[in-house]
Amino acid sequence: MSAHEDYWLAMSHGARIVELDRAESLRLLAAKKVGRLAMVHDGAPMIIPMNFTLTDERVIFRTLAHGLAAHAVGHPVAFEVDDIDDFLEAGWSVVVGGTARLLSEEELSELRGGGPDPWAEGPRTLYVEVPIEHLSGRQLVPR
Amino acid sequence: MSAHEDYWLAMSHGARIVELDRAESLRLLAAKKVGRLAMVHDGAPMIIPMNFTLTDERVIFRTLAHGLAAHAVGHPVAFEVDDIDDFLEAGWSVVVGGTARLLSEEELSELRGGGPDPWAEGPRTLYVEVPIEHLSGRQLVPR
Repeated sequence: MSAHEDYWLAMSHGARIVELDRAESLRLLAAKKVGRLAMVHDGAPMIIPMNFTLTDERVIFRTLAHGLAAHAVGHPVAFEVDDIDDFLEAGWSVVVGGTARLLSEEELSELRGGGPDPWAEGPRTLYVEVPIEHLSGRQLVPR
Repeated sequence: MSAHEDYWLAMSHGARIVELDRAESLRLLAAKKVGRLAMVHDGAPMIIPMNFTLTDERVIFRTLAHGLAAHAVGHPVAFEVDDIDDFLEAGWSVVVGGTARLLSEEELSELRGGGPDPWAEGPRTLYVEVPIEHLSGRQLVPR
């Protein structure tokens, strides 16, 4: 092997990657209060933390009428939660993929106050839902 | 005001949003070991946690030759770190935006082992850099 190859063949013997099944991914997602929403704006990704609730397998958050809603609603988005252990160099993450949409007034009524209370200030009048069209979870398990 | 308007005018009196300046954003970014990389794939955002180092105002991580590198390298990406306090319903986040690129062999030499050791297993032979072209930070300050 040349020095060049040696340099690049940087094998990591770190934590084992374990795929989580749907039930476990949903359980972990439901246990979190805050996730990160990723959207696409002018071809570039944006990412912003949001507090949320999980209701009937839908991620629901509230946001301002202007701002990120414009880049999320009607578009594919990703929503991620994780838990990281810096000491063990381990953790897990769960990612939801789906097309964001506004909740209708009827759907809002059905929530019966079950939606999230926004942590951040401002007129967060829009209830946005990310249906779980894709769900993946993985865990880093220390050796 | 109609019941309809009342329903939608859901003002949040939550935490105050404070923009962080560049120096504070860099300080918080440097203190973290793991962030979340957001990329665009087929018009949809992807998001994945990565451990990283911050060197000369560049976010550097190692990854597999196949997989996410294909969607990141040469494209605009976002890289986010945060710290969330579920009890106080507060926290902060810092987001870096930039076009990801591979480190050259010369740049790798200059790192002198200063790059990240991947937490996850696998041949993580590619060193990817996200230069800080955009940097924003914000904090939620409880009232």
